[in-house]
Amino acid sequence: MASVTCTAPVNIAVVKYWGKRDTQLILPTNDSLSVTLSQDILHSKTSISASKEYTQDRLWLNGKEEDITNNKRMHNCFRETRALRKKMEEQDSSLTPLSTYCLHVCSENNFPTAAGLASSASGLAALVFTLAKLFDLPISMSDLSRIARQGSGSSCRSLFGGFVAWEMGDQEDGSDSRAVQIAPDTHWPELEALICVVSDAKKGTSSTSGMQQTIETSRLMKERLQLVPELMDAMTKAILDKDFQSFAELTMRDSNQFHCVCLDTFPPIFYLNDTSRGIIKLIHEYNASYGTYKAAYTFDAGPNAVIYAPKENMKEIVQMIAHYFPPSEEKKSTYFTDPYHLFENGKLSGDRPIINDSFNSSVIPVYPAGSVGRLLHTKVHDGPRVLSNDQSLLNAEGIPKNLIQ
Amino acid sequence: MASVTCTAPVNIAVVKYWGKRDTQLILPTNDSLSVTLSQDILHSKTSISASKEYTQDRLWLNGKEEDITNNKRMHNCFRETRALRKKMEEQDSSLTPLSTYCLHVCSENNFPTAAGLASSASGLAALVFTLAKLFDLPISMSDLSRIARQGSGSSCRSLFGGFVAWEMGDQEDGSDSRAVQIAPDTHWPELEALICVVSDAKKGTSSTSGMQQTIETSRLMKERLQLVPELMDAMTKAILDKDFQSFAELTMRDSNQFHCVCLDTFPPIFYLNDTSRGIIKLIHEYNASYGTYKAAYTFDAGPNAVIYAPKENMKEIVQMIAHYFPPSEEKKSTYFTDPYHLFENGKLSGDRPIINDSFNSSVIPVYPAGSVGRLLHTKVHDGPRVLSNDQSLLNAEGIPKNLIQ
Repeated sequence: MASVTCTAPVNIAVVKYWGKRDTQLILPTNDSLSVTLSQDILHSKTSISASKEYTQDRLWLNGKEEDITNNKRMHNCFRETRALRKKMEEQDSSLTPLSTYCLHVCSENNFPTAAGLASSASGLAALVFTLAKLFDLPISMSDLSRIARQGSGSSCRSLFGGFVAWEMGDQEDGSDSRAVQIAPDTHWPELEALICVVSDAKKGTSSTSGMQQTIETSRLMKERLQLVPELMDAMTKAILDKDFQSFAELTMRDSNQFHCVCLDTFPPIFYLNDTSRGIIKLIHEYNASYGTYKAAYTFDAGPNAVIYAPKENMKEIVQMIAHYFPPSEEKKSTYFTDPYHLFENGKLSGDRPIINDSFNSSVIPVYPAGSVGRLLHTKVHDGPRVLSNDQSLLNAEGIPKNLIQ
Repeated sequence: MASVTCTAPVNIAVVKYWGKRDTQLILPTNDSLSVTLSQDILHSKTSISASKEYTQDRLWLNGKEEDITNNKRMHNCFRETRALRKKMEEQDSSLTPLSTYCLHVCSENNFPTAAGLASSASGLAALVFTLAKLFDLPISMSDLSRIARQGSGSSCRSLFGGFVAWEMGDQEDGSDSRAVQIAPDTHWPELEALICVVSDAKKGTSSTSGMQQTIETSRLMKERLQLVPELMDAMTKAILDKDFQSFAELTMRDSNQFHCVCLDTFPPIFYLNDTSRGIIKLIHEYNASYGTYKAAYTFDAGPNAVIYAPKENMKEIVQMIAHYFPPSEEKKSTYFTDPYHLFENGKLSGDRPIINDSFNSSVIPVYPAGSVGRLLHTKVHDGPRVLSNDQSLLNAEGIPKNLIQ
């Protein structure tokens, strides 16, 4: 039995991917650009073992076995990586014929899958990266990203750390639609992120179906597609220059424009709720009170905010968010766990209703406790990691150690 | 003393006005089109008296005197109508020299000014129409609309009943930017409206400042401006054909696109809240369940919904809205007063969670009581009306009968 265990990070786009020009190959209608967030805080962990004893491919997600019969995206990844392995085996008969073995895959997120925290991106990146390691594929990360892309579009960006572009490409077969690293995580260590997990009873439209509705029905989407190339250049320059002022404005504008084309979709798609909008107003007031960008929000296909900011502003931002969006009594202990020690004893101290003399503290009301369920402080960090075998999620028989019946 | 009393109606646009190309003359960046709603339900009522005894122009709004020193929009209307009266007096010396008298203006809305129900449109239309009657101006309604436009842009559309276009014009002096009637109220008597007054603690961005921010910062607004001419043609055709299917889709799409460019404004402007979005989802589910458009929503610069629908659907719609957005206990008696006798005894009976077999009744949850404060059932109706002098808001001394100190 061969077995490998890896983790892969979450990425949060600052130029959003929305819309496919080919839904089979998952080829996007525009370039996108994201920031890879630390696996120390959020990650998907995947163990894969291959054995000639196994009788079928099997998958366990967070301890529960899933029926993968119709999981086309996963089969795409299996097929593509097995084909590459098969070629190697044909050229070198001393290799174990792993391409002919069935696979057992066990994957876990260290965060709630349903929380809308880009779990499919990290999950598929972990799957494809682990397959590449298991099969010992001599493949570049960008080439591997073309396979990951066919599992889940934005997962291709989770194969790199730091700042990552997904170039849409223009080939019909998707051969040039792949992720490239713009800059490594060490390039701009001052940039950090605060994820505000926003409570929302309602399940929004899935991004897979939502983005195609936008392509089919939004007139303004056509205009957005015209604007993205210029935005990609400007965002890349802002990152290479470590120019937070430009980065912040471009990030917020792109997030707004993405939600704008969702609203121009017919019927309209809504991901932002009243709490999300409260966070947006608060960040604009915070920036206005200083006369400079101190923080930038971005929202994916859900109500959660990701606030990018230089390290030096983070303590103030956490206090400000905690003031306006206080935790519920029962979730107080998990609301903010302070992994990077902003506060003494790691305990959030004090709130911050008044930032400075110009700050209008009544810009938004204090929201009902629990409107924001959790604050996750994280950083720009590295790409997928290989773990040692003793950290495997699978036991010697290839069955999850933590099995939920 | 000469005195005249008039009422003017509210109008709700189905092709929205948003953005000025000249902020002094109030010249818009696009054509717009609206429906005039019945003054029996909502109106502004204005009495104006002119007397050589008066020592200054004075204004009372809803019983309270206002300082009009800096009320430029009002002075525009005074100046323009006085100039026309002066010409008449110069040509006919038998006329009372009303153009030299000071004016007392008293105006009341029969609905809360702050409720975001287009009170400035009906208010300025009532002002200008009453001035024209007081001065006995021989002026067409479209020519008068050019004066009203300079008081409040969309008020020009409240000078007509029925279906009204505001042609943006292209002259620099605004001489061709005026309202014209597309069809009278008698053209499509089946079309009715239900106004859902949505509770919202937060005061939104004023439309006057908001629209200029959009013009200055939204890239997608440029695209919208390209699309409006085609939309105006399609909407006009839908109205002339009494084609509710086209009218409904165009109305909803235009409302969404208007709120979309608000969101693309930087910083973004939000008028819709979670209740507004609930109404949108409900109307789409309602339509989808029948496989045809039974109702269409539109939202101005605030969270209130206006639902246009054929008369025959109105009872079902009221019951459906009342089910998902029930009244608070204390406002139960004013929630829905049934002016057109949809229900026996004029009392809302029963709710309607299940419309038909296809209707997904869990499309939205039942909202907290009071999320919608009031339902106003109204119809397409006529333009400004002249009332008899015994209905004047001013007494013989030109002082409001209902004075709030």
